[in-house]
Amino acid sequence: MITGKNCIGGQFKADGSVEFKTVDPKKNEENPTVFIEATKGEIDTAAELAWEAFKVFRKTSGKQRADFLNTIADEILALDQELIDTYMLESGLPEGRAIGERGRTVFQLRSFAKLVENDDWRENTFDAAQPDRKPQPKEDLRKTMIPLGPVVVFGASNFPLAYSTAGGDTASALASGCPVIVKGHPMHAGTNELVASAIAKAAEKTGMPKGVFSSVNGGTQTGIDLVEHPKVKAVGFTGSIGGGRALFDLAAKREEPIPVFAEMGSINPVIMTADAISKRGSELAKTYAGSITLGTGQFCTNPGLLLTVKSPDTEAFVQELAKETTAIDAQTMLHPNIKKGYESKGEDVISQKGVAVVGKYEGNLDANEAASIIASVSGEVFLKNPKMHQEVFGPFSMVVQCKDEAELLQIIEGLEGQLTGTLIAEKGDGANLLEIVDALQNRVGRIIYNGVPTGVEVCASMQHGGPYPASTDSRFTAVGIHSIKRWVRPISYQSFPMELLPDHLKK
Amino acid sequence: MITGKNCIGGQFKADGSVEFKTVDPKKNEENPTVFIEATKGEIDTAAELAWEAFKVFRKTSGKQRADFLNTIADEILALDQELIDTYMLESGLPEGRAIGERGRTVFQLRSFAKLVENDDWRENTFDAAQPDRKPQPKEDLRKTMIPLGPVVVFGASNFPLAYSTAGGDTASALASGCPVIVKGHPMHAGTNELVASAIAKAAEKTGMPKGVFSSVNGGTQTGIDLVEHPKVKAVGFTGSIGGGRALFDLAAKREEPIPVFAEMGSINPVIMTADAISKRGSELAKTYAGSITLGTGQFCTNPGLLLTVKSPDTEAFVQELAKETTAIDAQTMLHPNIKKGYESKGEDVISQKGVAVVGKYEGNLDANEAASIIASVSGEVFLKNPKMHQEVFGPFSMVVQCKDEAELLQIIEGLEGQLTGTLIAEKGDGANLLEIVDALQNRVGRIIYNGVPTGVEVCASMQHGGPYPASTDSRFTAVGIHSIKRWVRPISYQSFPMELLPDHLKK
Repeated sequence: MITGKNCIGGQFKADGSVEFKTVDPKKNEENPTVFIEATKGEIDTAAELAWEAFKVFRKTSGKQRADFLNTIADEILALDQELIDTYMLESGLPEGRAIGERGRTVFQLRSFAKLVENDDWRENTFDAAQPDRKPQPKEDLRKTMIPLGPVVVFGASNFPLAYSTAGGDTASALASGCPVIVKGHPMHAGTNELVASAIAKAAEKTGMPKGVFSSVNGGTQTGIDLVEHPKVKAVGFTGSIGGGRALFDLAAKREEPIPVFAEMGSINPVIMTADAISKRGSELAKTYAGSITLGTGQFCTNPGLLLTVKSPDTEAFVQELAKETTAIDAQTMLHPNIKKGYESKGEDVISQKGVAVVGKYEGNLDANEAASIIASVSGEVFLKNPKMHQEVFGPFSMVVQCKDEAELLQIIEGLEGQLTGTLIAEKGDGANLLEIVDALQNRVGRIIYNGVPTGVEVCASMQHGGPYPASTDSRFTAVGIHSIKRWVRPISYQSFPMELLPDHLKK
Repeated sequence: MITGKNCIGGQFKADGSVEFKTVDPKKNEENPTVFIEATKGEIDTAAELAWEAFKVFRKTSGKQRADFLNTIADEILALDQELIDTYMLESGLPEGRAIGERGRTVFQLRSFAKLVENDDWRENTFDAAQPDRKPQPKEDLRKTMIPLGPVVVFGASNFPLAYSTAGGDTASALASGCPVIVKGHPMHAGTNELVASAIAKAAEKTGMPKGVFSSVNGGTQTGIDLVEHPKVKAVGFTGSIGGGRALFDLAAKREEPIPVFAEMGSINPVIMTADAISKRGSELAKTYAGSITLGTGQFCTNPGLLLTVKSPDTEAFVQELAKETTAIDAQTMLHPNIKKGYESKGEDVISQKGVAVVGKYEGNLDANEAASIIASVSGEVFLKNPKMHQEVFGPFSMVVQCKDEAELLQIIEGLEGQLTGTLIAEKGDGANLLEIVDALQNRVGRIIYNGVPTGVEVCASMQHGGPYPASTDSRFTAVGIHSIKRWVRPISYQSFPMELLPDHLKK
C-alpha cells in the first residue's frame, strides 16, 4: 500500500528520480520501500494548488472544517495495524508508544474540530457605532480572525504521528482555514505517506478543494523550496535548533517575510532544593531516572539539567540518581544519525574540564541503543562554559552543584530560553522559592512544581514554546487549542452592511 | 526648558559631541535648540538599566502600572502650551491637529491604564487537575501572559505625539510590564524631549524603577545599536518600508532573534463601483478630495489608489475629483526631506507610460507646501507596472480604470499587503460585492464600507496592521488595546501551590 510517491493535492505522484529509503533502527537495516523525492515542479504545483484551494477553503464553515478533521481522525484509525507496524519499523519505538501517539494525534484532530464548530475561537469583538459622538461620530467596527494562507509543516523526527503529518501544526492550520503542505520527515516516510493518504481520503470524502493538503518527500533543498515559495504564508517546524533557525532565516530573507513557528531544543532545567533532596532524595532519584530515560531521552522536554545548592546530601543523591538511571535497560534511538549525534554531543560535554561522569550504562548495546549518562559539575565551572548549556538529545542529564542560592539564580538568569523549568521543593522550604520562580519564569514557557517536565498535556492552559532558542517566537504555543493563533490574523470591518459581513459577525 | 540631552533612566545627559537641530518646515529654517546624539555608552546604559528595571517592573501590580500611565497623561497635559508650540514648530502641523493628537495620546495612555487595572487582559486560562483520569492523571495547569522584556520604540515622523514617545507602542509596552527605550524622531527631537521629561517625572512620582524609561537622540547607527543590544527583547516601529524592513532584518539576524512590529507604508486601495460613481459621483469627489489631502496626505491610511470599472460616468468623476482636490489650499509637509520624497516619488509614478495627470494644484507654494495630484491609468497598464503600486507619501492619488470586474479582481489579488481597503458601493449594486470583499480582505487589515480609510479609531475592534509590507507581522495591531499582545507571551504553571502563583492565578 505504501507507494513511495508524493501526495500532490490528493494525487500520488513521482515525477522525480532521486530515491531514498528509511531505516529500521532496531536492525540498522534499510526498509524495502523506495521513496521518490518531489521535484521542484511538484513542489510548485503543491503550492499553487494550495493557493487556489485557499480561496475556497477560507470560506468553508467551521462545521465543514470540523467534519474534515474528524474524518481525518477516522481515516487514521482505519489504517489500523499497518500504521502501527510502519511506525515501529521506521522509528524503533515500541507498540505501546505507537498506539499512545496515535491516540494523541486523533485527540488533537478532534479537539480542533470541536474548537472550530462554532466561531468563538475567532475572538470576535464588536464596537457599536456612536453617530452622535463629538467631535466625531464613531463608526461601527467588528473584528475577527482570518487564516493567513498556505502553511508548510515540517514534522518532528521524535514524534512520527503527533508532531508530524497530521500532528498539532497540521490540525491547527487546517482548523483555521489554511491549506497545508507537509514535508514528510525522511526518517519515517512510510508513516508519513500512510497518514497523507488518510488526509487525502478525508479531503475527498468531505468535499474539500483538492489543494487543501499535499505531502512531499525530500531533504534540505525541498525544505528551502517550500519556505521560499511566494504562495506559502507561514511555517511550522519541530526539530533541532540548527534546522529551525535555518528555516527562520530563509523566511525572514524573503521579499515578503513570513512567520515561522519553530519549536526547537531545550535542556529543561530542574531546580531541586537542598531540603527536597534531603527529605526525599531516593524518591526523586527514581522519578527522575524514569523521566531522563523516557523515550530514550528523545523528548523535547527531557530534563537535561538538574540544578541544586550543594548540601551534605547532594553527593549521595547524585550517586543514587546515576544508579537508578543506569539500571534502566537501554533503548533504541530513532535513527543511527541520532545515536551518533547523542554520542558526539555527550562526549563533547563530558570531556569539558571539571565535568565528572557519575554513572554510565554499562550493559550490552544492540543496534542504535543508547547508553544513559549522569554527569556532575560545580556551578562555578558551569557558569564559565557555555558548551555545557547545550542540549544533548538523548538519555543524558547533568547535575550542577551550586555553592549558594546567589550562584543558582545567576545560572538561571544566564540560561538560554527553555520550553520548561521545574522546581522541586518542600512546604516551608529553606530556599527563597518566590525568587527562584521569578527568575525561572523569565527563561521558560512552562514551569512545573514537584513534577517532571516530560509529558505535555493537550489542553487550553498548556504553553509549549518559550524564549529563543526553545522556539522562534515565544508569543505562541505549538500545543493546545491556542496553537491556532499562529496561523490567523485579525481583520476589522468598518461600517459594514449585514449582508456583506461573514455570518459570525452578523449581530 | 528643552536641553537637547538624552533621557537615560530618568537622568538628562549628553556625553556625546554629535549635534543636530530640528527644522521649522513652515520657514525652512533650523530651530535654535542644539540636540546631542546619545553615545554608544549611553545606549548601553539605557539598555542595562531597562533590564534591571524589568526585574522589578514585571512584578508591579496592574494598579501600579495604571497609576504610572495616568500620571504620564497628567504630566503631558501639564506641559501645556510649550508642548503645543514645540510640536507646531517642528512639524509644521496646525494647532488644532496638535491639540487633537495630544488628546489621542492621553486617551491611549488612560485606555491602557484602564485595561491593566485588572488582569483580564492576560487571557488567564485554568485547567483543573483530574487525579483519577486514566491512563494518566491530569495535572492542574494555569496559563497567563507575562511581559517579554525591554522594548525599543521608534516614533513616527507624521505623528509626533500619538505614534511617538508616549504613543501607542510605548503605552502598550509599559502597560504590559515592559520597560521602554524610545529613539526620538530627529525631526521632532524637542517634542520628544518634552514628552520624555513627562514620562520621567511620572516614573519618579509613582515610584517606578529608574530604568523603566529612556529616550535617546540619534540617527541610523543609534537605531542599529538599540535593536542589536542583547538586553532588548522587542521593537516597535512606525514609518517607511525601508526603515521598518531594515530593523526587521537586523532583529532577525541577532543571535537571539526578537520580534519587530513595524507598521509601514500602504496605498490603501479604494474600490468604487460604477453604480456608486453614477449615483453620487459629486459627493464622493468632495469626500475623497478631503481624505486625500488630509494632513497633507501624510497619513498611513491615505487613499492612494482608487479602483473602478470604467463606465460612461468615470471620466466626469475623475475630472471632478481632480477639481475638488486641487481646489483645496496647499499645506506644509513635515520636513523638506519629506517634500523632496513626495515630489520624486510622484514624478516617478506620473512619468510612467500610460499615466495621465488629471489635475495638479497650481497655486503658489510656500516653503515645504505640497501640490496635490490626481492621476489616472488603465487597469491593463497598472497591472503590468509594479512601479505604480508603490506609496507616494503625500496628497497624491491615482484612479485605475479597469475594463471589467475580472480585471479589477486581478488587480486586488496582485496588490501588496495593505493597512486598509475600502469599498464604495450602492444597495443593490450591480457589482459582485461579496467577491470584491473576499478578494480585498485577503490583502488588508481593515476593510471599510462607504467611508474613508483616514481616521483610525482607538478601540478594541480596530486592526491597524496588515499583510506585509503594511506591517512586518499581520497577526498583531498597532492601535487599540490588543496592541499589548505584541509585548507579552504565555506561560503555564503546572501543579503550582497557591503561595507561589501570581495573585491573578490564585483561585
